[in-house]
Amino acid sequence: MTVAVICGGVGAARLLTGLQRVIEPGEIVAIGNVGDDLELHGLHVSPDLDTIVYTTSGAVSTERGWGLEGETWQAMASLARYSPSPGSAAGDGGLEGAEGPTAALDWFSLGDRDLGTHLYRTHRLLQGAALGEVTAEIARAWGLGFHLLPVTDDRLRTMVTTADHGEISFQEYFVGHQHGVPVTAVRFDGAEVAKPGPGVLDALAQAERIVIAPSNPVVSIDPVLAVPGVRQAVAARRDDVVAVSPIVGGKALKGPADRLLTELGRDPSVVGVAEWYRDLIGTLVIDTVDAAEARRIEALGLRAVVTDTVMREPAITDALARALIGADS
Amino acid sequence: MTVAVICGGVGAARLLTGLQRVIEPGEIVAIGNVGDDLELHGLHVSPDLDTIVYTTSGAVSTERGWGLEGETWQAMASLARYSPSPGSAAGDGGLEGAEGPTAALDWFSLGDRDLGTHLYRTHRLLQGAALGEVTAEIARAWGLGFHLLPVTDDRLRTMVTTADHGEISFQEYFVGHQHGVPVTAVRFDGAEVAKPGPGVLDALAQAERIVIAPSNPVVSIDPVLAVPGVRQAVAARRDDVVAVSPIVGGKALKGPADRLLTELGRDPSVVGVAEWYRDLIGTLVIDTVDAAEARRIEALGLRAVVTDTVMREPAITDALARALIGADS
Repeated sequence: MTVAVICGGVGAARLLTGLQRVIEPGEIVAIGNVGDDLELHGLHVSPDLDTIVYTTSGAVSTERGWGLEGETWQAMASLARYSPSPGSAAGDGGLEGAEGPTAALDWFSLGDRDLGTHLYRTHRLLQGAALGEVTAEIARAWGLGFHLLPVTDDRLRTMVTTADHGEISFQEYFVGHQHGVPVTAVRFDGAEVAKPGPGVLDALAQAERIVIAPSNPVVSIDPVLAVPGVRQAVAARRDDVVAVSPIVGGKALKGPADRLLTELGRDPSVVGVAEWYRDLIGTLVIDTVDAAEARRIEALGLRAVVTDTVMREPAITDALARALIGADS
Repeated sequence: MTVAVICGGVGAARLLTGLQRVIEPGEIVAIGNVGDDLELHGLHVSPDLDTIVYTTSGAVSTERGWGLEGETWQAMASLARYSPSPGSAAGDGGLEGAEGPTAALDWFSLGDRDLGTHLYRTHRLLQGAALGEVTAEIARAWGLGFHLLPVTDDRLRTMVTTADHGEISFQEYFVGHQHGVPVTAVRFDGAEVAKPGPGVLDALAQAERIVIAPSNPVVSIDPVLAVPGVRQAVAARRDDVVAVSPIVGGKALKGPADRLLTELGRDPSVVGVAEWYRDLIGTLVIDTVDAAEARRIEALGLRAVVTDTVMREPAITDALARALIGADS
């Protein structure tokens, strides 16, 4: 069975570890989010793509859930030496004009080993390679068996409007403010003119199944869908599209999905997720703790599949992956 | 006494460690070479400026003579994972279009701690800061007591024409080929339109003494002099200018100065150095092993000062620094 997976970061990466065990990896096309990419100190950083590579290759730090096992932080310690005192000429050292938590130069941690990846990506992009090419090279270097395609080679950035700090980049919100500030709107800068990367629309048209990973619908999946043609390509396959709810028992497993849904006037529940995706998916997979909500999801015209969705251990992850492949009945 | 020091890398850095002990550091202006700067994987690297900062602050690796003590190399090991196989799409991974020793991505070693400096410099340059501003910030962060001015804020690159590889950048020659290939010409790309950095011409006009450090005359000192106005400013002070010969007993203490002089048709000796600098300097300091050459130097219209110039230990370095200050008689 061929599967296209629309991905955010950690949740998607974990799901892919199962999928690549239960079907032929070469039959999987992961379509990755680039809305949380950033240019930092001259380097191009793609956190969601790297999380997928590091996790599915088994190199991820299991303790942190991101970055590499055995990582060291010498470069950041050195960079911190140069962090300017407030009010100095270099006072906007973090992000351009940034104040608050991103003013320190080391607000976004880049591990020493991880830096090798960013140096490579930046090097190749400066040589004129497309992000998709570079991503394929990085995936190959880590021995990935599945295809990993950034949704676009073009610049697309998730921008978050906050009540207190105006519009800030996704990483300023997510890392700088530790997603602890209220959000009033989300926008995908550059999306209007971005083109789907090579292979993306083909994968969505040809896959027997399209999976929407249990990633944040608002800031991880939506930037992928925002690339012109992608949302339509998914909607055209609605009956073959299955999403895994990132909300379990009214809470996000990780990150601010529940709060974001609430702040944007939605229901932070599996029903809210079903409503969010209703024009795109035929099936929503929900956790057993939410079994009682299956009927409300079906009332929206979707199938509901109830199973363990919290990927605590490989057996659960693999069972979830199998459920996704059989989830059309 | 106020002193302006025209600097290359290691030899200049070592001399400055002595000068800052024997005179008030705030009275010293070091004018640094940027001809060996490079843009590497998106980062701006200034090897000579960093060697001066790391050495004079006592942080340099005494074993290597460059880079930081206690350095680690995780980022390079990670980058090497991505080094492409020859002939692949990414086969020109090292320098743009490079072949041979610079084709591997990790041909120029960037230590993890050192990377913090390059991340900072690049960050600030992308913010629009001038190289001189950033250099002052870096110097301040390491507690330097003297002034360190890049000779120019503009782009200036030492280019080396080799018999076998055509024209290559200084670092391709020096690090990539380990300065082991014959050179037919040296050129300073960008020099014609470069402007002296803020303070450079003032320092040369106002210093009581101008010192030319025992650095490579051809590829370390000449790029500094190549910035319009600098050579003239030095020549105008000829009687107050003292150089330390980087050639001792017919050999360069470090690097290819002796071979470069020979390849460019010069004499690889203290007399060759005297001839190279004769329009610029009033005094040449030579090592005791070259004492017999003093008369030939004086025959060129220069004063010759004979002393220990090999800075094996602080006492010798300090004595050399003192000789430079008193070397007008």
